[in-house]
Amino acid sequence: MQYKKRTHTCGELRPSHIGQPITLTGWVDTRRDLGGVIFIDLRDRYGITQVVFGPQYEEKAHQLAKELRSEYVISVTGKVEQRPEGTINPKILTGEVDVVGMELVILNKAENPPFAIEDDIDTNEDLRLKYRYLDLRRSEMQKRLLFRHKMYQITRKYFDEHNFVEIETPVLMKSTPEGARDFLVPSRINPGKFYALPQSPQTYKQILMVAGFDRYFQVVKCFRDEDLRADRQPEFTQIDVEMSFIDELDIQTIVEGLMKKFFKELLNIEVQTPFPRLSYKEAMEGYGSDKPDLRFGLKFADFSELVKDSGFKVFSESVKKGNVVAGFAVPGGAGFTRNQMDNLVDFTKSLGVGGLAYIKLTDKGIDSAIEKFLGNEICLKICEAAGAKPGDNVFIVSDTWQKTYSTLGTLRLEMAKRLNLTDENKWNLLWVVDFPMFEYSEEEKRFVAMHHPFTSPKPEDEHFLNTDPPKARARAYDLVLNGNEIAGGSIRIFNSEMQSKVFSLLGIGTEEAKTKFGFMLDAFKFGAPPHGGIAFGFDRIAMLLTNSKSIRDVIAFPKTSSGYSLMDDNPSEVDKKQLDELHIKLK
Amino acid sequence: MQYKKRTHTCGELRPSHIGQPITLTGWVDTRRDLGGVIFIDLRDRYGITQVVFGPQYEEKAHQLAKELRSEYVISVTGKVEQRPEGTINPKILTGEVDVVGMELVILNKAENPPFAIEDDIDTNEDLRLKYRYLDLRRSEMQKRLLFRHKMYQITRKYFDEHNFVEIETPVLMKSTPEGARDFLVPSRINPGKFYALPQSPQTYKQILMVAGFDRYFQVVKCFRDEDLRADRQPEFTQIDVEMSFIDELDIQTIVEGLMKKFFKELLNIEVQTPFPRLSYKEAMEGYGSDKPDLRFGLKFADFSELVKDSGFKVFSESVKKGNVVAGFAVPGGAGFTRNQMDNLVDFTKSLGVGGLAYIKLTDKGIDSAIEKFLGNEICLKICEAAGAKPGDNVFIVSDTWQKTYSTLGTLRLEMAKRLNLTDENKWNLLWVVDFPMFEYSEEEKRFVAMHHPFTSPKPEDEHFLNTDPPKARARAYDLVLNGNEIAGGSIRIFNSEMQSKVFSLLGIGTEEAKTKFGFMLDAFKFGAPPHGGIAFGFDRIAMLLTNSKSIRDVIAFPKTSSGYSLMDDNPSEVDKKQLDELHIKLK
Repeated sequence: MQYKKRTHTCGELRPSHIGQPITLTGWVDTRRDLGGVIFIDLRDRYGITQVVFGPQYEEKAHQLAKELRSEYVISVTGKVEQRPEGTINPKILTGEVDVVGMELVILNKAENPPFAIEDDIDTNEDLRLKYRYLDLRRSEMQKRLLFRHKMYQITRKYFDEHNFVEIETPVLMKSTPEGARDFLVPSRINPGKFYALPQSPQTYKQILMVAGFDRYFQVVKCFRDEDLRADRQPEFTQIDVEMSFIDELDIQTIVEGLMKKFFKELLNIEVQTPFPRLSYKEAMEGYGSDKPDLRFGLKFADFSELVKDSGFKVFSESVKKGNVVAGFAVPGGAGFTRNQMDNLVDFTKSLGVGGLAYIKLTDKGIDSAIEKFLGNEICLKICEAAGAKPGDNVFIVSDTWQKTYSTLGTLRLEMAKRLNLTDENKWNLLWVVDFPMFEYSEEEKRFVAMHHPFTSPKPEDEHFLNTDPPKARARAYDLVLNGNEIAGGSIRIFNSEMQSKVFSLLGIGTEEAKTKFGFMLDAFKFGAPPHGGIAFGFDRIAMLLTNSKSIRDVIAFPKTSSGYSLMDDNPSEVDKKQLDELHIKLK
Repeated sequence: MQYKKRTHTCGELRPSHIGQPITLTGWVDTRRDLGGVIFIDLRDRYGITQVVFGPQYEEKAHQLAKELRSEYVISVTGKVEQRPEGTINPKILTGEVDVVGMELVILNKAENPPFAIEDDIDTNEDLRLKYRYLDLRRSEMQKRLLFRHKMYQITRKYFDEHNFVEIETPVLMKSTPEGARDFLVPSRINPGKFYALPQSPQTYKQILMVAGFDRYFQVVKCFRDEDLRADRQPEFTQIDVEMSFIDELDIQTIVEGLMKKFFKELLNIEVQTPFPRLSYKEAMEGYGSDKPDLRFGLKFADFSELVKDSGFKVFSESVKKGNVVAGFAVPGGAGFTRNQMDNLVDFTKSLGVGGLAYIKLTDKGIDSAIEKFLGNEICLKICEAAGAKPGDNVFIVSDTWQKTYSTLGTLRLEMAKRLNLTDENKWNLLWVVDFPMFEYSEEEKRFVAMHHPFTSPKPEDEHFLNTDPPKARARAYDLVLNGNEIAGGSIRIFNSEMQSKVFSLLGIGTEEAKTKFGFMLDAFKFGAPPHGGIAFGFDRIAMLLTNSKSIRDVIAFPKTSSGYSLMDDNPSEVDKKQLDELHIKLK
């Protein structure tokens, strides 16, 4: 097919081009046939240009233009003209000019698309995913992927300028299920053996530190075979970073610099560094979350001391058992109806605690069903501790430390939502630090690593590993943006003995540790430097910075929550011959 | 462990630092205990600095320095001093100064490494791979990975500056075995179904063109489950590029620009663009290869016309059958002994043709066993056609076009090697174009795509698809560097009918095409633009530009030829539970 190559894009023509002969290529966005003349909005990823065909210009092109339909791909040669007075479109950058179409080539026809190629469509997402090539033509999707493109470039440039070395780690790696499930890849050449796809390049990047690379980064695909939630994908992208001869502050400073760049170059926003630090304890006891959203207040207060000797046995006995009584003031909550409160009590109970007590503070004083047990004075003190003002309502929960604060955390987010307390124009960045090394997994009936098994304990807590492991805090840090964990890292263990000890506390036996991580334990024997690092959730950051609702909107070809690609019908069945060669069969 | 953070790297200190207190961290490269003082060469990835410990400086540090051994990791605080006259080391950039060690912290000890951490070791490669973290400490390996790092940055910057959009395509894709075998990934959530790892993101990048992205690139991991040859890896890195509304020249020009950057920024070499173009026919008939190495001559001549009516039946009857008689002049080959020639005849026969004829041209004229059949005049004409000078030897082969030229191609490379004709300082870049669409696979007894099934035929050859498919040439192009294919691409088919026709010529039935590529055929119905692209072998280019012997030397963690990672013992056996969850079992 013969056609002229474009001389300009559809976003390029300005009054300065008037009179010039040009060629554009692109997709027919809209077509209006006014009988005498035909107007085409021609679209490419750079913009939209209006093209006019008419018999007074070129009869042959005008005749052919009658065949045009939405999404036809064409090449148009013509002349740039000033638009007539009153027809200028100030909404688009090319809105002052028209192209008079003299030669038209239809490069490809198009069937009628199953949804409109425009922003803010309310099409079912499955349909968008099936016809992803059409969905991606929509300007909001193009903008998101271009935003993501810029994120890649900023990231690489930033780390390159800071002397980091980009090194690719293997995708076909060793299966070491710890945490999530591995995706497995049967080996044809090694019958009965399997590769696994990396959940993260953790072991490799540590090995690179042992190899002396000092500062490593990679933007890398990682894989987790989990039951997918709305905001997870089986494959996701991570900015992976590791440094040697450093401490927490070095890593955090590097990360803050990158975030500063992102905000400045992508959104033209100056963010202040350093970001605030909250310890895990402060975050939990203040906001009930290890990734607190501080765009709004609702900070917690601990009422245990106030109520421990009160006549309200529900509270006093709870405190005596070692539990906590805590809560927060809900602004304007004194106005909640009985119905609203019943609903909130039910909501709170559904989170697994016994109930929700509350004290309304009105202009007339305390209004609370528990006043008769606690007494007016303690009620007032509780209101004071919670920072309540007249008109507020103090919500109180009592249970174990963990349950109290995680329940209050959920309740806090719920109240912020119901009361619309979140300033959507704010960007709240903070570090959560000093995580516990271990958390007890009810499911597995054992300690699991809160970060991962390669995380170093804080030097002052090392003795707890022998005496009281749950008390040991880790040299771990998470970066939180608007209540979302967007990066997590730690200073690593860098000697075999400590690593073996932590494996053993995690219930990974000597034999298992040797099989799975023997090469790391070996590597540590040949001169491992102190090192640490971090990994960013690239998709998550892209989603948050573009104000997208789902990470699927910032991924070109995402999968559904069942790990399925609707566009190309994947995963799919394969030939028996393929399975035979891989020495496996279906169960 | 408490230690001071480094103030400088081991490659940084100069006379301007003399007198300053500094801290260095790194690995003990060598240690010399002279009794009174101990010299340490301290190494990190930036260089080597000499540190001196002695009782006259600081007794405690000197005592501790006695414990140091190779590859110990240390932190040293001390003062920079001028080296005494006569001890300056001009070979290293820090060679004018010493650091006097005042405080020493041993950060980690090291066992004795199984091989020396130095360049040009002749250690068995398996041992290097097992202890890759030590192998990668060697300066030549560090340089290679830093070179590769620069290649990534140059590549991304170049494409970004040329308005290409970086888009990640899925790693968990659809299995569409065509060409090589797929690596498969069983789906847990979709029992009996499998993902495949991409052999290339070919279909996705074409879909991105249908989506209007216009200019796409990605540096991306690809996977082929093949029986590995020395220079192949199961996973490899590709620079993947696709453009819309373009022709061959646009792609080639973009590629030439990148190669120019690589040579300039990495090797400070100016390469001339545009690169020469050879058609497939010219490449085969001139050099017997579709990736000819033109750093040396040995160009072929076709003698068929000269011999077709001669009395030498071996040749004349061959020509009558439609075969070819061709060959090339070997400089100085008239001096080959009988023994050498017998050896070359055997070598040629081993390539699958009947034999090798030859005509020596000496100062006294023709010296050839076949002169008696051909006559002196034809022999002289053959020598003339081959450009032979006195002292040369014209090698002649006759068989089918394919066999003649591929045999001569192998023979040409062999002679270049034996006669040491390759100028190792030359960089020979060229394009091979106008490949046939199809080649007949003896193994599969059908036509297979020479490039891939999405390649467009040349417009003037489209009619051959109906009449004589092997005659149809493709809009395909390969970039060749010093006889290695380093990139290959094509202008693609962009409408369903042509795509279906090519599938059918390749023996891919309608049903199979629909199952495997239905989404692409569908996509082409909704307005696909004309498009084309190319893919570069990143590892191969890195290998060639760093003069490395194997692609394993430019990959951080490569696998052996049996797809095995010796460092971490991978692939490995997995728990039965893992297989159960994936609904598969071992055969």
